[in-house]
Amino acid sequence: MALSAGDHGKDSANGLKEKVLTLDTMNPCVRRVEYAVRGPIVLRALELEQELQQGAKKPFTEVVRANIGDAHAMGQKPITFLRQVLALCVHPELLNSPQFPEDAKRRAQRVLQACGGHSLGAYSVSAGLPLVREDVARYIQQRDGGIPADPDNIFLSTGASDAIVTVLKLLVAGEGRGRTGVLIPIPQYPLYSAALAELNAVQVDYYLDEERAWALDVAELRRALRQARDHCCPRVLCVINPGNPTGQVQTRECIEAVIRFAFEERLFLMADEVYQDNVYAEGSRFHSFKKVLMEMGPPYTTQQELASFHSISKGYMGECGFRGGYVEVVNMDAAVQQQMQKLMSVRLCPPAPGQALLDVVVSPPAPSDPSFALFQEERQAVLAELAAKAKLTEQVFNQAPGIRCNPVQGAMYSFPRVELPPRAVRRAQELGLAPDMFFCLRLLEETGICVVPGSGFGQREGTYHFRMTILPPMEKLRPLLEKLSQFHAKFTCEFA
Amino acid sequence: MALSAGDHGKDSANGLKEKVLTLDTMNPCVRRVEYAVRGPIVLRALELEQELQQGAKKPFTEVVRANIGDAHAMGQKPITFLRQVLALCVHPELLNSPQFPEDAKRRAQRVLQACGGHSLGAYSVSAGLPLVREDVARYIQQRDGGIPADPDNIFLSTGASDAIVTVLKLLVAGEGRGRTGVLIPIPQYPLYSAALAELNAVQVDYYLDEERAWALDVAELRRALRQARDHCCPRVLCVINPGNPTGQVQTRECIEAVIRFAFEERLFLMADEVYQDNVYAEGSRFHSFKKVLMEMGPPYTTQQELASFHSISKGYMGECGFRGGYVEVVNMDAAVQQQMQKLMSVRLCPPAPGQALLDVVVSPPAPSDPSFALFQEERQAVLAELAAKAKLTEQVFNQAPGIRCNPVQGAMYSFPRVELPPRAVRRAQELGLAPDMFFCLRLLEETGICVVPGSGFGQREGTYHFRMTILPPMEKLRPLLEKLSQFHAKFTCEFA
Repeated sequence: MALSAGDHGKDSANGLKEKVLTLDTMNPCVRRVEYAVRGPIVLRALELEQELQQGAKKPFTEVVRANIGDAHAMGQKPITFLRQVLALCVHPELLNSPQFPEDAKRRAQRVLQACGGHSLGAYSVSAGLPLVREDVARYIQQRDGGIPADPDNIFLSTGASDAIVTVLKLLVAGEGRGRTGVLIPIPQYPLYSAALAELNAVQVDYYLDEERAWALDVAELRRALRQARDHCCPRVLCVINPGNPTGQVQTRECIEAVIRFAFEERLFLMADEVYQDNVYAEGSRFHSFKKVLMEMGPPYTTQQELASFHSISKGYMGECGFRGGYVEVVNMDAAVQQQMQKLMSVRLCPPAPGQALLDVVVSPPAPSDPSFALFQEERQAVLAELAAKAKLTEQVFNQAPGIRCNPVQGAMYSFPRVELPPRAVRRAQELGLAPDMFFCLRLLEETGICVVPGSGFGQREGTYHFRMTILPPMEKLRPLLEKLSQFHAKFTCEFA
Repeated sequence: MALSAGDHGKDSANGLKEKVLTLDTMNPCVRRVEYAVRGPIVLRALELEQELQQGAKKPFTEVVRANIGDAHAMGQKPITFLRQVLALCVHPELLNSPQFPEDAKRRAQRVLQACGGHSLGAYSVSAGLPLVREDVARYIQQRDGGIPADPDNIFLSTGASDAIVTVLKLLVAGEGRGRTGVLIPIPQYPLYSAALAELNAVQVDYYLDEERAWALDVAELRRALRQARDHCCPRVLCVINPGNPTGQVQTRECIEAVIRFAFEERLFLMADEVYQDNVYAEGSRFHSFKKVLMEMGPPYTTQQELASFHSISKGYMGECGFRGGYVEVVNMDAAVQQQMQKLMSVRLCPPAPGQALLDVVVSPPAPSDPSFALFQEERQAVLAELAAKAKLTEQVFNQAPGIRCNPVQGAMYSFPRVELPPRAVRRAQELGLAPDMFFCLRLLEETGICVVPGSGFGQREGTYHFRMTILPPMEKLRPLLEKLSQFHAKFTCEFA
């Protein structure tokens, strides 16, 4: 009755069948995906940690993971009020405990009332709990000086990454020269290149201007767009502000110019604004794309399509592990918005604990609340330390010959440019490595410092960079920066 | 400098530009996605709830959402120990509180030790915390009578859905007649059809045998495969056991036959086993595909590729909102497994609270632990009540003329077949509705009972079904079943 083995399969001589799923037969789009922030250098860092644990001798005693914006992993303490509310939501018996302040209890009860069966264990509707979406809308309205936000335009997500991929998914269509092109900044956060590879869309690079502190220049957008029109159909413009990995904060004028450009060129705007709370430089201020768009008046206000993303992973809270975030869509076609809702429903709902934390983040304690003082103190302490670390990073790097670091105006990263001697570049090429990957691997092996090579984010040809977070605690950061600078000097000598 | 508006866009007479993203320009694969469990009938249920809240008069006083397997929303209480451990992880200050048992504290400390910065707010590695993966491996080994499981083959996920889609993504390739075909049961859980539509893979239907309590028949698999080979390249076989929406539990013999078939036909096996704790019928027992595969010996044991999925959303815990789950892969090509790891890293990590809950689920209190008695009592109470409700559902439905319900051997749903009078079928067709959608919509409007039409899961042409969860509390379930049966009788009269 059964077909004999091999009727449909290639059998090798030893009777082993080839696997169904191999590198050759797998999804070629997935194969093309790259994600540097957790790439080979991080796998090597993990190995080194294990070797250290097993007692191996190394020129360092610990691996410092400055590769990823993971504040708690770097020792930042959670904000007390956030965790109090969440603990109460998780285990409502604690609502009777005198250990918790009244406002935390009130907030937890409010969230639980909104949950099915008053439990975080119930699914929410796919766009997220209506209560949380209303609170997010109020937060946006307040942030944007009173410009209204509609809870129906807000979709909660499993971190910002999830929402970004969902919106890209909607936008990707066409074949051959009709394929959707998506403009992304270079350097970029590699979620974008990874998602575009997976979705088989065309990545269109526009370069940020390193000489002008990574400013976004509309003339460069125009160049990128013109060239792209030869081989694809550009329909989307992604902007990251404050910048990752570049740390620049866009001026209001720049944002206006970008919006005008997107409108004229018929591009759907995606604004990655997850670092909106992380602005440090004097004179820099966060302007949301939504606010600028709304203040520009018609036709922009009424017609320009925009999706803006936010997250609980960054800011002062750094709650990456909870995977909470949201997207607000503006001027999205109503029927498409229904399609987005449908698409999200297939994954059921974003994690309820992340929704609950997001709720507290967007409506923190008010001055009259018992938890206000402590909350403010903790929040300010985190943001003030980040500001100091941003400044220190820039200073130390710029004292090192062969390293040049733009001001870290915002976000959580420096992206310094490093000069690499031609002999090091040739050596890297012999090893089949990008030159800055070669540099970063050597840095890791000799100092235990894990940073991500600029080639993982994109950079102008012939320039070399790395991304390093500013998150290590102050007492560790200065020696770290100095060690890194010294290593660069040594590396330069070695290959001189 | 700027191009004038309209150079690249179609402008309508009133000066409005067409939107960039419309139903016509959006991703056509996303447009084809359908997801009945949260489809139009559920949106209508939400509207009805709002109308009731606003004081509208209806022939019912509450909407009962029997459309989705959401235990907590139906009033099931969380398992105390799970929530104790999680509350301690969320707010470690509670580790000093006398309110918590020692074993809960020990478990929480163990999880926190494994987290970056000892915080659930840190990202984990993308495959999930190594500690949790080791505990999952031990759980599987114990479940499978000692057959070993390797933590490196276990990937944690954002609910089982996430892992299922990830594995499907790897498997999808080819164009035209070379496109990957994926065999799925009919009736199916619509995640599968939705994911295949989105990924542009070919859905290949094989029918479960309603006359034999929804048994899976290898002859039917063979028929489906033969026909599919004319127009695609079938490479994947999905099995749901215990069945959703059909509630059958597969025999060991059946599983062996399926594995043999998959091996002979070179199909990658995907075993959706999220209901493995939910087996009620006497004589039924859960057999994991992994265990059966390993007991069959070579070549199956060493060559057949398998991915098995589990979740914290179902079972006795019902923690859907936390989005926790895992996949174990067996005999997967090592290079592909690295690709899977890479793909998962783009989304950073599964939610840490879900990972922590999963850890407790796979290693519950031992008999010597202080929390053992309460944990067992709560767990047994949930499972015993589900078993009673499964039995009651079958009984009441089978007493109703025109309704026929197979035994609910496992999972959380009944999928009864309903006779619909020809005049009702014609009326539905006039309205452009599937006949069972018409029935379910009328049921909702007149009784407040929300169930999902069989057409959303797939069924043999000319037959009609609906899926109803067995989750409403006992005291509500009997009247609900009777009300539904009475409505069917009335509906049958109306269209006689």
